[in-house]
Amino acid sequence: MKYGFSEKVKYLKSSAVRDILKVINQGNIISFAGGLPEEKLFPTEAVSQAFHKAVTTNRKALQYGETEGVTELRQWLANRMSNKGIERSFEDILITSGSQQAIDLFSRVMFDQGDVILAENPTYLAALQVFESYGTKVVGVDSDEDGMVISDLEKKITKWKPKCIYVVPTFSNPTGKVWSLERRKQILQLAEKYHVVIFEDDPYGELKFSSGDVPPPMASLDKKGLVLYTSTFSKTVVPAMRIGWIAGPHQIIRIMAQAKQATDLHTNSISQHALVHLVNDFDIDEHIETIRATYYERMLVMKDLLDRVDMDGLEYLEPKGGMFFWVKLPEGINTEILLADAVKEGVAFVPGAPFYVDNVKQNTLRMNFTNSEPAIIEEGMRRFVKVLEQNKTTIG
Amino acid sequence: MKYGFSEKVKYLKSSAVRDILKVINQGNIISFAGGLPEEKLFPTEAVSQAFHKAVTTNRKALQYGETEGVTELRQWLANRMSNKGIERSFEDILITSGSQQAIDLFSRVMFDQGDVILAENPTYLAALQVFESYGTKVVGVDSDEDGMVISDLEKKITKWKPKCIYVVPTFSNPTGKVWSLERRKQILQLAEKYHVVIFEDDPYGELKFSSGDVPPPMASLDKKGLVLYTSTFSKTVVPAMRIGWIAGPHQIIRIMAQAKQATDLHTNSISQHALVHLVNDFDIDEHIETIRATYYERMLVMKDLLDRVDMDGLEYLEPKGGMFFWVKLPEGINTEILLADAVKEGVAFVPGAPFYVDNVKQNTLRMNFTNSEPAIIEEGMRRFVKVLEQNKTTIG
Repeated sequence: MKYGFSEKVKYLKSSAVRDILKVINQGNIISFAGGLPEEKLFPTEAVSQAFHKAVTTNRKALQYGETEGVTELRQWLANRMSNKGIERSFEDILITSGSQQAIDLFSRVMFDQGDVILAENPTYLAALQVFESYGTKVVGVDSDEDGMVISDLEKKITKWKPKCIYVVPTFSNPTGKVWSLERRKQILQLAEKYHVVIFEDDPYGELKFSSGDVPPPMASLDKKGLVLYTSTFSKTVVPAMRIGWIAGPHQIIRIMAQAKQATDLHTNSISQHALVHLVNDFDIDEHIETIRATYYERMLVMKDLLDRVDMDGLEYLEPKGGMFFWVKLPEGINTEILLADAVKEGVAFVPGAPFYVDNVKQNTLRMNFTNSEPAIIEEGMRRFVKVLEQNKTTIG
Repeated sequence: MKYGFSEKVKYLKSSAVRDILKVINQGNIISFAGGLPEEKLFPTEAVSQAFHKAVTTNRKALQYGETEGVTELRQWLANRMSNKGIERSFEDILITSGSQQAIDLFSRVMFDQGDVILAENPTYLAALQVFESYGTKVVGVDSDEDGMVISDLEKKITKWKPKCIYVVPTFSNPTGKVWSLERRKQILQLAEKYHVVIFEDDPYGELKFSSGDVPPPMASLDKKGLVLYTSTFSKTVVPAMRIGWIAGPHQIIRIMAQAKQATDLHTNSISQHALVHLVNDFDIDEHIETIRATYYERMLVMKDLLDRVDMDGLEYLEPKGGMFFWVKLPEGINTEILLADAVKEGVAFVPGAPFYVDNVKQNTLRMNFTNSEPAIIEEGMRRFVKVLEQNKTTIG
């Protein structure tokens, strides 16, 4: 039987990262490829107690729930976001199945085929995938250390009349960059001037390494109802719960809730109730401090080893938070080909190409440091350097 | 700020049932409106233990998981479906966030704007909502006690060239009907003849009242890879988990998994692992027997009270399973208007109109009997009969 799929199916791509993950999970490979948090830090005892309370305290918690999400969780989030300067009532918050679903529902209610989205280049590839699954065109904006380059952004706004600017301004994926406050304000001013909505994706905001200040989320600077802000519990509690949220102008959140009702009625509410118990009974901030300290230590281990690589043209930016190193190798090295060699040596990373919107740089790659203990990072980097040495000979 | 939504937003409708539920949850109203299982039957102790095991046995269970779902759960489902004659490998099964998401993902990969879906009239309104959210046209097929009328189905297949036939053949929502084996076979033959895919929605299949046989699922009769079959744990365990599944031709399931990856990466895997423990440690069949017996008793209470209503033209079909009575009142009564009176008297139901694809019958309504104890059913029916009496005078 030949099946007649929808036209949109041609825009669906499997995620390169997840496809690689599938393969490498099968062997004895040290993986710097995924974006996985450290399992050993999962607060299993607290999570277990929270689920116990969620299941046994109130039978209503096991019944069908409201599409918008569990009110107490939304209230806690409203309060927590307020501490970061984002002033939103709980009614402006929709609980989603991870922040991935927030990106999808937003796309569903906002984009028609042919609509244009502006994004930093490179950027989070699974967001690109979702945008493109709706037949949109994503156009890359030049960026420097401080964020999108304002002149290029304005040029592209006027040329492309985009429906949305997608931003990951804090510990971005894949580059680990933090956009400056000045740049955040300038981007908002342009968005206001041209009436463009900003979608701020902030999965890593809690994972900062230094005690120094990080600029506030763009949503906290928004006075005109232009910014939608999404984040997740996947990096601070556990990913398997699939609990994220999105906050923004009520008019958009309301329509997204209607789309969500059609999509899956509501997000798993046992997990939502468990989170309510967890944030009440457990010191989540202390837990986040432990995560930060652990990831910071691992980042330094990887940085030290990267510094010791003897290869001209190898560059990276030291991440101030988040989960990744973004590495540039000398021109002429194609990291997709390099990956095949690396896997043979027992180490994996993600080639940079899929993160690019356009002007793909084949000599880039992303390495995760959060999911491997220091000794494993050392062994993995030893293997990685060996592969680099081999390739240096090839191109040298 | 005026936001530019996508064209498809105009097809999004809020569910009439859920909107009513929101209102009636606020007052002292006996509700026969929702499709809620009885909370008192939730196996909270077993669910709690299952979650405890899921959270504490294996940290990997708390990590990001595979889009297709937890393998052990898919294997258990493959085995369970096999007992009903549906032969599918676990690789032909995708775990979804409730069967609602199965309907949505299927629609996403199959339908383009203007595509036609044939459905019994009336049928499950939330499926209609999803189909229409993709800009499709749903065309109603005539049906009698045994299911879709074959001559009308063939006429409409040749006229409309539908992409899909949507069926709820076992304890259908809203009518509680069971389609005969003969009719199931004839529908399959037509689907084969014209190469049309069948989407079989079976949330209530486990909830049968008599010990007598119910015809097997249409998916079990399918030899040509034409039937997709979806069901859920919402009615047999708890709805708050949002765990459903869809089984069908691998080619379609694989593309749906790609769409799911973009949508929400994967379904809550703590709940999936908890279900694996639950089905191993807990006698789910005995539990289902308890649910059946309880619902059967409640159905009989409501039936007895319906039989005693003194109103010419009131008709219903005794449900052989499931959760609902579908009631026809004398022509001239508009149940949407009647609902307003009913809510004043402290009882609620769902007007039949939203379940209709076309040829809407305003004098119909759906009543749920599973979520109210017998004494509450009696009081609710007393109020309902009072409202009917008032309206009899009005139209008499």
